[in-house]
Amino acid sequence: MSRFDLVAFDADDTLWHSEDSFHAGEQRFVELLTPYAPAGVDVKAALTAVERANLRTYGYGVKAFGLSAVEAAISISGGTVPNEVIGAILAGVRAQLSEPVRLLPHVAEVLAALSGTVPLALITKGDLIHQTHKIETSGIAHHFAHVEVVLEKDPPTYARLLSEVGVAPDRFLMIGNSVRSDVLPVLALGGTAVHIPYPLLWELEHVDHDEHVVELASITQVPGWLSATT
Amino acid sequence: MSRFDLVAFDADDTLWHSEDSFHAGEQRFVELLTPYAPAGVDVKAALTAVERANLRTYGYGVKAFGLSAVEAAISISGGTVPNEVIGAILAGVRAQLSEPVRLLPHVAEVLAALSGTVPLALITKGDLIHQTHKIETSGIAHHFAHVEVVLEKDPPTYARLLSEVGVAPDRFLMIGNSVRSDVLPVLALGGTAVHIPYPLLWELEHVDHDEHVVELASITQVPGWLSATT
Repeated sequence: MSRFDLVAFDADDTLWHSEDSFHAGEQRFVELLTPYAPAGVDVKAALTAVERANLRTYGYGVKAFGLSAVEAAISISGGTVPNEVIGAILAGVRAQLSEPVRLLPHVAEVLAALSGTVPLALITKGDLIHQTHKIETSGIAHHFAHVEVVLEKDPPTYARLLSEVGVAPDRFLMIGNSVRSDVLPVLALGGTAVHIPYPLLWELEHVDHDEHVVELASITQVPGWLSATT
Repeated sequence: MSRFDLVAFDADDTLWHSEDSFHAGEQRFVELLTPYAPAGVDVKAALTAVERANLRTYGYGVKAFGLSAVEAAISISGGTVPNEVIGAILAGVRAQLSEPVRLLPHVAEVLAALSGTVPLALITKGDLIHQTHKIETSGIAHHFAHVEVVLEKDPPTYARLLSEVGVAPDRFLMIGNSVRSDVLPVLALGGTAVHIPYPLLWELEHVDHDEHVVELASITQVPGWLSATT
């Protein structure tokens, strides 16, 4: 019936809000650090530079952000940032890891409708404990035949996942908000991908490319798009 | 030939050294913090208490340790710990995440011998990026038919993994250094488990129990034990 044997969704900013919390955390960091930064220092750019330098060591997620933020606070302030500010950064990390899942509009109803027609998977990268906590408390986990938290969403990772579940790349559809992580690596394998943008995108997820990318405005358009392409 | 369809190994302190680095990190923390702690404060106990309080939020691994260590440094010192000390804690975290894998003696040869007789799996908990990095650089990854980094090693997690690979619990053997994580949950499912102690065990891995546990002194005894139980 479907031309796909597996339809996979990204999670952060595709099924539930995520980047807005990181964005708020960055803004809080800028407010906290600005009094201790030399005049003319771009606090936000310095934080991102530390995150970028640590990406291969720390990976993705809130704990990685927290460690980089403390490091950046010390370096931006020239070693003068008070303990209270570092404590506030850590409190923000714990709050973000504990905050309830906030599903994007219509996600639950679209997944419920689709899950009756084709096997669904959830493929997300990030911090294992945080992503698992979000998946378990999301109320939508039961719609997914497969749930995978991966380190990096690159072609080898997608190829390994598809091999494990026995799905050919040309029978695989990936849906997500990141062209870099959800679209390009799947197209590279000969799969199909749909991009559903989220209003915010982390700077380190930006990518330049010249691929033709299918873009939908909302998850509510996925069932209609699937019917039209079958 | 084997009475098992899958033989799985834990990784940290079963295949390679791990706890000794955490232990060194704790000792460094105690040395760094003691000058800023009120007289009579047990710095190590205070650190462990913070780790315990954060375990459900941060999970296992070096990044979790780092965030808890910074938090503990601030609270133990009453907000007086210098930026240099916090910077040293963070530098230790990055160094631990980047240090080369140090295999335990005879691991490579035992895995090479066993992998020809029965499918092997590696099941580890901890930080996704750190464990993946260690597995990829260990030089022994090719011996494993399945590699799983999980959030918690409890009976539901083992049951899910066994179901995914289609192995009955009574045909499953787990080998590891933690009675709490590698032995008791597998016995609870009706599987078989072998305990190979490591000289150091993290305080939060200690468990009281009255199960009969098979204990071997070294991984070199696994092939002989397997032959004797077949």
